[in-house]
Amino acid sequence: MATRATAVTGSPPHRFRVALHDSDAAGVLFFAHLFRHAHDAYEDLMEALGWRLDALIRAGQLALPLVHAEADYRLPLRHGETVEVAVEVLAVGTRSFTLGYRFSTAAGAFAATARTIHAGLDPHRGCPVKLPADLAAALRARNPALAETGSGPKPRSAGDPGANAEPAV
Amino acid sequence: MATRATAVTGSPPHRFRVALHDSDAAGVLFFAHLFRHAHDAYEDLMEALGWRLDALIRAGQLALPLVHAEADYRLPLRHGETVEVAVEVLAVGTRSFTLGYRFSTAAGAFAATARTIHAGLDPHRGCPVKLPADLAAALRARNPALAETGSGPKPRSAGDPGANAEPAV
Amino acid sequence: MATRATAVTGSPPHRFRVALHDSDAAGVLFFAHLFRHAHDAYEDLMEALGWRLDALIRAGQLALPLVHAEADYRLPLRHGETVEVAVEVLAVGTRSFTLGYRFSTAAGAFAATARTIHAGLDPHRGCPVKLPADLAAALRARNPALAETGSGPKPRSAGDPGANAEPAV
Amino acid sequence: MATRATAVTGSPPHRFRVALHDSDAAGVLFFAHLFRHAHDAYEDLMEALGWRLDALIRAGQLALPLVHAEADYRLPLRHGETVEVAVEVLAVGTRSFTLGYRFSTAAGAFAATARTIHAGLDPHRGCPVKLPADLAAALRARNPALAETGSGPKPRSAGDPGANAEPAV
Repeated sequence: MATRATAVTGSPPHRFRVALHDSDAAGVLFFAHLFRHAHDAYEDLMEALGWRLDALIRAGQLALPLVHAEADYRLPLRHGETVEVAVEVLAVGTRSFTLGYRFSTAAGAFAATARTIHAGLDPHRGCPVKLPADLAAALRARNPALAETGSGPKPRSAGDPGANAEPAV
Repeated sequence: MATRATAVTGSPPHRFRVALHDSDAAGVLFFAHLFRHAHDAYEDLMEALGWRLDALIRAGQLALPLVHAEADYRLPLRHGETVEVAVEVLAVGTRSFTLGYRFSTAAGAFAATARTIHAGLDPHRGCPVKLPADLAAALRARNPALAETGSGPKPRSAGDPGANAEPAV
Repeated sequence: MATRATAVTGSPPHRFRVALHDSDAAGVLFFAHLFRHAHDAYEDLMEALGWRLDALIRAGQLALPLVHAEADYRLPLRHGETVEVAVEVLAVGTRSFTLGYRFSTAAGAFAATARTIHAGLDPHRGCPVKLPADLAAALRARNPALAETGSGPKPRSAGDPGANAEPAV
Repeated sequence: MATRATAVTGSPPHRFRVALHDSDAAGVLFFAHLFRHAHDAYEDLMEALGWRLDALIRAGQLALPLVHAEADYRLPLRHGETVEVAVEVLAVGTRSFTLGYRFSTAAGAFAATARTIHAGLDPHRGCPVKLPADLAAALRARNPALAETGSGPKPRSAGDPGANAEPAV
């Protein structure tokens, strides 16, 4: 997944070092912390798109909660390792979008992937809403395949894309 | 997924209250923390099976790293809510096992599910190993459907069960 | 500090097991997580006093931010250990209160102490406010020494009590 | 505390942005996470000194556990804010050293301070040990006041410096 992420997005990947607090008694990154770092990369992406998440939350008109998250772990990430996270926009629908993340070590080893689906939500009424047109456009513009067609492929590794396509949250 | 978890496992579900540190600026559980709580429920399960994770890690002969984790979020979990986590053993293979988690609020609302796949690993050589026979048996005994057949069904909601069946980690 | 905490407060201590995600590559509780557990015990105390923190934050009329936190670590807390946290109200001033925490292992060993100072804050104007009289009274009632005098002693182990007495936050 | 930290250490300060997962339902950095960021700055310092913490832990001959940690919070740190952490070596003793941290916003506002005391420990025997002479020298070299005298001042804001001077851990 997301093998061409860096080339596609044209942005430098998010980078972090596995901190002591990221590691656990087994000496490696505790699996749930991978999602924390994925979210940091997502915050970077949103800033690059002109949609800072902190401003969005403070404005209180639109929420983009995660309705799905998944990760596959290939290599243990040890305390002290430098890790790069490349983010790719995998799909942009009417009410949700899907991001893919690829984690590599500084030595170039492919360590993990993750995928998150974010859905538009009216935070006051708690009901799904369409993504703002300019946010959808900005997301599609990060992935030439999506920008060309205006719709884009379905998430490539989704277990149940139908169920995820229109999130109930 | 895992609708009969409590009945099947015969154990009380893991319970937690959404703490202030679980919540984020949007006022709800930060998605990655769901995995932290799932892992707490996993640690409880392993203790109930007689395989305490802390003892396993200290012994250093067998590791059970996660090779896959995923979650679907249906309802926001707010600061202060009490949440129950029911764990179900979904599948037990030769070298890995799959757990399902169902998160419900104290009011009985179904809030989220999660799924994790754990693979046997030799921590010294870093290569996959078979699950110890008694661990596999203890896991299967938690799910009558698995105990009956001795092998059990494939993970029910896996996006790519083939890829996950024999983890490379 | 807080040697008679359980007797004084009359409440069962907060209890937790050192989870895998609490531990770090050195095999013991990462120091910052002690504060997370102290805060969980604080949330329990506030609920016992009838001042649930989640309701307080949602109401938005009063905030009680920490202006100081400190901990002393005596024994490493290892993955899998059960830990008890006894909370004591050390001081209640006009605009702030001080809590003490004592962490003990299930075997009775004294492992750590912590202390937090919480200040009344108007969240809209961002300026200090007096503690509500009934909150101050409920806090004092947890510590006979404070309840008797109506004012109570200064924090016993504060490095610079004068600076902390009227928090600037 | 640590007002001349950047000038003294000669290193660029550690920098982070308050991530969504750093914030809580009150919209600001959860207090315990300040210590996580302080520790990241400490890991940076140790790397700059040639004593990478991950290598130290893996070597298993010397541990440097925290025996004390404290923080004073002046300003709330909001989701999205960029924060600089300047680290200063406050004291270097025979068996322990003390670091000070100063947190400032990108706009230059002074937001918080922290202080940590780290003690030399033999991880096998669990008893205090002297700091290696070259580590002590490298730490002192970061603070001209300490380097000149070879011993240095006592921690300036310690509540009980005597008790901390020879940690029992």
